[in-house]
Amino acid sequence: MARLIDQFQQLPGIGPRTAQRLALHLLRQPKEKIHNFANSLLEAHDQVGQCKKCFHLSAESECEICRNNQRSKQLICAVADSRDLLALERTREFKGLYHVIGGLISPMDGIGPEMLEILSLVKRVEQDSVKEVILALTPSVEGDTTSLYLARLLKPFTKVTRIAYGLPVGSELEYADEVTLSRALEGRQIID
Amino acid sequence: MARLIDQFQQLPGIGPRTAQRLALHLLRQPKEKIHNFANSLLEAHDQVGQCKKCFHLSAESECEICRNNQRSKQLICAVADSRDLLALERTREFKGLYHVIGGLISPMDGIGPEMLEILSLVKRVEQDSVKEVILALTPSVEGDTTSLYLARLLKPFTKVTRIAYGLPVGSELEYADEVTLSRALEGRQIID
Repeated sequence: MARLIDQFQQLPGIGPRTAQRLALHLLRQPKEKIHNFANSLLEAHDQVGQCKKCFHLSAESECEICRNNQRSKQLICAVADSRDLLALERTREFKGLYHVIGGLISPMDGIGPEMLEILSLVKRVEQDSVKEVILALTPSVEGDTTSLYLARLLKPFTKVTRIAYGLPVGSELEYADEVTLSRALEGRQIID
Repeated sequence: MARLIDQFQQLPGIGPRTAQRLALHLLRQPKEKIHNFANSLLEAHDQVGQCKKCFHLSAESECEICRNNQRSKQLICAVADSRDLLALERTREFKGLYHVIGGLISPMDGIGPEMLEILSLVKRVEQDSVKEVILALTPSVEGDTTSLYLARLLKPFTKVTRIAYGLPVGSELEYADEVTLSRALEGRQIID
């Protein structure tokens, strides 16, 4: 029992009390249900790998997005991880492909560019003569460092853009922090 | 007493309980303090008017910002109200002048363009041969409507830009709402 609670506690966002609640709940379930749960875990871990092109989670060697012929192969959006890819997919706006680089450059945490899927992106851009790479990384020190690093590497081969930083839709200017407002001023765009 | 509580309750963000607490607190103060408070209220209301150029709150006929010769008179940032102006001033980035239009166009609330300081802005742009007007309005239906209206009026005379809408600095892409992400994709910028 203590071991199960401990396992749950290691999951992100789950503290000791929630872990205990979850463990107790599961132990009260019929055996069959528990077996199903355990099997789903094992199967998912067995079957879900990475797309060999974009490194998104995928059960096949090439993910659904990369296999979709309706999507432009000349436009790649680089994201830090699969969760960000899924967030962008929810907008239903982006009709290109992705490249999941697997994290952000962070010397403080010992994460260098060679540990990320960066060279594979450069190679892909070269081989598929990609017209534009959109960098969709979080607006943080690590995100900016990684964006600059990627931009320097990719520029000889393609146009490099980054998503806009500024006021989130529905927010009040009055309550925006100074850095966001500065970025919004800097990044102002001509209205046409 | 009930009348005082009622007065406080009419202030923004103050509910019945806070109103009661404030009123009770004031009644416990020495008479002198109460007089000072009441006088400050009256004086502030007497003295603070609007700048005749930019319509920001000002004790003089022309506000400190408009009188500052260090600031560029060729660059005007249009904001909905004085609170937004103060938010932008906190960034210490903007070195131009402002124009406080006094609200946003909102047919639902019966606010038409003629109730806002819009014609005065057009006139100012014409007279001072302003080179750029930055529209810094909130990313909402009313903000966008007002931006488009202003852009149409101002374009014959000057360059019109708007501040960037996108991811706020320090935010996680994963948690951004779809509309903000769409805007951030749309508004992407070339990295140089």
